[in-house]
Amino acid sequence: MSDLRDGDSGIFEAARSVDVVNARIAADANPRLREIMEIVTRHLHAAVAEVQLTTEEWMTGIKFLTDTGHMCTEWRQEFILLSDVLGVSMLVDAINHERPAGSTENTVLGPFYLPDAPRYANGADICLDGKGEPLLVSGRVVDGAGNAIAGATIDVWAANEDGFYDVQQKGIQPDFNLRGVFTTEADGSYWFRSVKPRHYPIPDDGPVGKMLAALGRHPNRAAHLHFIISAPGHDTVVTHIFTPDCPYLKEDAVFGVKSSLIADFQRIDAPQRADELGFTNPFWAVKWDVVLAPAA
Amino acid sequence: MSDLRDGDSGIFEAARSVDVVNARIAADANPRLREIMEIVTRHLHAAVAEVQLTTEEWMTGIKFLTDTGHMCTEWRQEFILLSDVLGVSMLVDAINHERPAGSTENTVLGPFYLPDAPRYANGADICLDGKGEPLLVSGRVVDGAGNAIAGATIDVWAANEDGFYDVQQKGIQPDFNLRGVFTTEADGSYWFRSVKPRHYPIPDDGPVGKMLAALGRHPNRAAHLHFIISAPGHDTVVTHIFTPDCPYLKEDAVFGVKSSLIADFQRIDAPQRADELGFTNPFWAVKWDVVLAPAA
Repeated sequence: MSDLRDGDSGIFEAARSVDVVNARIAADANPRLREIMEIVTRHLHAAVAEVQLTTEEWMTGIKFLTDTGHMCTEWRQEFILLSDVLGVSMLVDAINHERPAGSTENTVLGPFYLPDAPRYANGADICLDGKGEPLLVSGRVVDGAGNAIAGATIDVWAANEDGFYDVQQKGIQPDFNLRGVFTTEADGSYWFRSVKPRHYPIPDDGPVGKMLAALGRHPNRAAHLHFIISAPGHDTVVTHIFTPDCPYLKEDAVFGVKSSLIADFQRIDAPQRADELGFTNPFWAVKWDVVLAPAA
Repeated sequence: MSDLRDGDSGIFEAARSVDVVNARIAADANPRLREIMEIVTRHLHAAVAEVQLTTEEWMTGIKFLTDTGHMCTEWRQEFILLSDVLGVSMLVDAINHERPAGSTENTVLGPFYLPDAPRYANGADICLDGKGEPLLVSGRVVDGAGNAIAGATIDVWAANEDGFYDVQQKGIQPDFNLRGVFTTEADGSYWFRSVKPRHYPIPDDGPVGKMLAALGRHPNRAAHLHFIISAPGHDTVVTHIFTPDCPYLKEDAVFGVKSSLIADFQRIDAPQRADELGFTNPFWAVKWDVVLAPAA
């Protein structure tokens, strides 16, 4: 028994709390799991000690995590939202998507992607609810040397003029409103019609929204169009393009904005061209070229 | 727009991710909340970067937290269990309960405390199910100078011989089995009858249990009796006493063991004394003196 009273390894001491906890991991545990748990436990204890967390604050944290878990359903992922607003999702994306200079950059996927959007010929209009300012999107998909990539897939989705995705307003918006899958032509080009994106709030009626409010942070995402661009032999890009005039560009709630993803949206005053496109005049146009890196 | 393309503060960059996120906190946010969030975000990002977390591992983490939240009910707190098995609960306890040397130390409260256990006169037997090896617990409650504290309250609870608390086996164990509230006499003494505690597993049928299994960690708590000792003008002590012969003393699943809380359980062979106590012979006895610090 004497050894148990001599600070032997199994007994908890605050000054060596990390070592005591991590020493419990079995010798034959999965090495990667061991690595992750050792690092997470070390940083977790360091944060608690640096904060000098009170018992009441600890209980507030337990309740916050519990409420966040209870908010999660098949249709709502509050822990991903938490990861997003704390910049963790973007950090994980950066760690996992280092690409050669000049390649189009990734950003967050977000919770509103649907894998089965309709396939359209280039030129189709994906705005099915008639709301918003008309927008022509066009560009080319090329490799790092500037060679056209024919047959690349461009999967696009966006929120509507009211700031909601179709899946958030089933029965209100037409199904697959502002969603479409396009394919590049022989010269790598693609084009489609849509509407200029607007900013919108992330779902802020849950614990994460309450946390943002307590921090004096607004829940708005900078206006954007979502893209997934893929082609055989190339690294798939999950990204957005952002409008340069959005008031939330410098304070996107989920930190999704990257300088290279701010696109040049132009206001076009050309009545005949508007007529050809079936647009009211003036309208918006953006050229957006995509540079794919080779598959890893 | 040019400033937005020059790495201006609002735009996410992995190399300064913590600063970008923390800069969003409003100037008039609660200062303590700001401090906590800044520190937590810094350690969270540091952990993700050090781990070089993959997208798949991130999703595994999201799913683990979600499952942990979904496991929480009015009767089950899986996030507290997670805090316990990662040593966080004991660390928070250590931060919040520094006491003068010689004072009785705290340990975890655990999830099975009931505030309304029956009050008994000293000597009562709190074992209502007739299971287990009989145990006499006795001692004194004193202050740091050794002066008796009369009228101190001793609130005791324990798992039964099968390893369950009454609240885990409603309808199987008698209500308030192995629970009681005692009061010290004029000389600070208290005594009661119970049974020798046995080790038992924490609830391990949820995400935390799965995590422990993946780490090769068993879920067993070292055998203990719970105590809350309180007296006017003194710092309330939430603690356990541990049996010295438990096989899990050096590997308590929640790190609750402290060297000073291992008590001297004696096997007593004294047929006449056993008769007086209504015990079978031989029986167990433990003397446990409590030293209360002044209220903070």
